[in-house]
Amino acid sequence: MTGLATGTNTTTTVGRRILGIDPGSNKTGYAALLQVGRQLSVLESGTICLSSRWTLSRRLGALAEQIDELVARIAPQEVAVEDVFSSKNARSALALGQARGAILAAVGRRAVPVEAYPPATIKKAITGHGAADKVQIQRMVSAMLALTQAPQADEADAMAVAICHALARRAAR
Amino acid sequence: MTGLATGTNTTTTVGRRILGIDPGSNKTGYAALLQVGRQLSVLESGTICLSSRWTLSRRLGALAEQIDELVARIAPQEVAVEDVFSSKNARSALALGQARGAILAAVGRRAVPVEAYPPATIKKAITGHGAADKVQIQRMVSAMLALTQAPQADEADAMAVAICHALARRAAR
Repeated sequence: MTGLATGTNTTTTVGRRILGIDPGSNKTGYAALLQVGRQLSVLESGTICLSSRWTLSRRLGALAEQIDELVARIAPQEVAVEDVFSSKNARSALALGQARGAILAAVGRRAVPVEAYPPATIKKAITGHGAADKVQIQRMVSAMLALTQAPQADEADAMAVAICHALARRAAR
Repeated sequence: MTGLATGTNTTTTVGRRILGIDPGSNKTGYAALLQVGRQLSVLESGTICLSSRWTLSRRLGALAEQIDELVARIAPQEVAVEDVFSSKNARSALALGQARGAILAAVGRRAVPVEAYPPATIKKAITGHGAADKVQIQRMVSAMLALTQAPQADEADAMAVAICHALARRAAR
């Protein structure tokens, strides 16, 4: 795991910790945000990369293990992931589903609630419209979280789904 | 878990223990076979059913947990699963992929090697032709394992992939 690793705040008891995850069959982005009132900040973020030389079960096992460690360390109150309904084809849907299954099973075993948001809902929450591109997401996420350095694409997507969840929770109250 | 549970042989040190798994988004069949020379017998088999009232992450977490317990109890030398390349549509591929990911991650975390076999290869190994139907598979599996009671469809598929793996190993030597 690499990470912006902006702080040792993960043990704070003030505010809510939201873990956003962007599952991928090769790279999985994650971002742990702290929400205190209307303020959102990054506790930790990074990308989990899996070696393509490993067998599928070893890769998925390593992914589940890293998510398990992350959930244990961050102790999020909620996990937010992107909901996926469509895919280019059945084969890529299966590959993405496998990574998603390894991740959701790891979170489920720790009994942390998971919320899923459709891509258009996430884009709309971040940029105001549902058809934003990757670069717009990266820019808006950087601005909203006051980042000094632009996050990588997978990290930015994980931040975006976590922000979307924080805004949805705020709106629901 | 239900199971034929034909014995307490799971701690035996003679022969090889092969765990066959037939992943499904609702029901997952499993079958632990013992291979001693040319002889194959069932140590334990069953179906893991997940409540449709549970959240997705809870279901996948429970599935991973049950597979984890199964691998710990059976201590198989190898796990065999059906390989999936195609699906009716991207949505069902994603759902199957998620179950498969939860299962393979649980096996991968215990560092047990996994072999995957295409459906046609499994059918051919069991019945002699690659386009056999469910009933033919159930009948042949019952005969090959000398079962007194026909297994359920998901259990039979798990037995079939385990037999296919045992035959492939024998042919490879």
